[in-house]
Amino acid sequence: MDLHPDLVELAPLVGTWRGEGHGTYPTIEPFDYTEEVVFATVPTKPFLVYRQRTADATSGEPLHTESGYLRAAGPGRIEMTVAQPTGIAEVHAGTVSDGAFDLRSQAVVLTPTAKEVVTVHRHLVVEGDVLRYRLEMGAMGQPHQLHLEAELRRVDS
Amino acid sequence: MDLHPDLVELAPLVGTWRGEGHGTYPTIEPFDYTEEVVFATVPTKPFLVYRQRTADATSGEPLHTESGYLRAAGPGRIEMTVAQPTGIAEVHAGTVSDGAFDLRSQAVVLTPTAKEVVTVHRHLVVEGDVLRYRLEMGAMGQPHQLHLEAELRRVDS
Repeated sequence: MDLHPDLVELAPLVGTWRGEGHGTYPTIEPFDYTEEVVFATVPTKPFLVYRQRTADATSGEPLHTESGYLRAAGPGRIEMTVAQPTGIAEVHAGTVSDGAFDLRSQAVVLTPTAKEVVTVHRHLVVEGDVLRYRLEMGAMGQPHQLHLEAELRRVDS
Repeated sequence: MDLHPDLVELAPLVGTWRGEGHGTYPTIEPFDYTEEVVFATVPTKPFLVYRQRTADATSGEPLHTESGYLRAAGPGRIEMTVAQPTGIAEVHAGTVSDGAFDLRSQAVVLTPTAKEVVTVHRHLVVEGDVLRYRLEMGAMGQPHQLHLEAELRRVDS
């Protein structure tokens, strides 16, 4: 693995992960999904490439996808950028400690036709070959609250 | 090609493109780079996946990479989201006409350790199997001006 020395604390995330998740929000019907997440290194670079896609757990139809970067920002500090095809982009700052990654949106910006998202909180925990995450969101006039949670297993490192 | 009907005007971009570019800005030495750009469809979805990477034209060392989505927003209208590993995220709105894609940043947002970028203008033109783009940028206290221009050829459709 071509791991930049600044990425030691991010190393637990590197690999391909697959599993299942559950989504809920006051404005939609609850739903179940399958997911693939990749965190990949780029030789000599102090960041991880992030990409993700989900599909309907029953029909297999593509649901969401997003991509971005997780970036080392000093000891215990991380940053993330995310682009979404729904017209949303996020920049995050947060902390990493013992495989727990806590990211809070510093800004969420929208194209003219995007739905309104105001705040996003991404919390990921890696324990060995299991990655669990929770995503909380304040959107569509609703208070900030749980939107997604999933449990994934490492399928490639 | 699994082309969503809303993507007819974006179809000229679909494929993998490779070529060379030149970068300049008052705060840096001019530089030459090689580049690969991909615009890809996702079955049933009204957007294109965008990813890009450049390398130093002489040494082959990785330089920049970014990813995001180009989204149909009504006849003649397009939107784009971009995430960069440098801690920058952009949302754009613009127009498409006869293979010319003109995108102006509606917002550029930064993580705490990112360099300051204020405005980005992305202009792409496809003529057959040739993609030319210009990227203008207002950043680091400098007025909005040309930063990158490149000419790429389609290597896979």
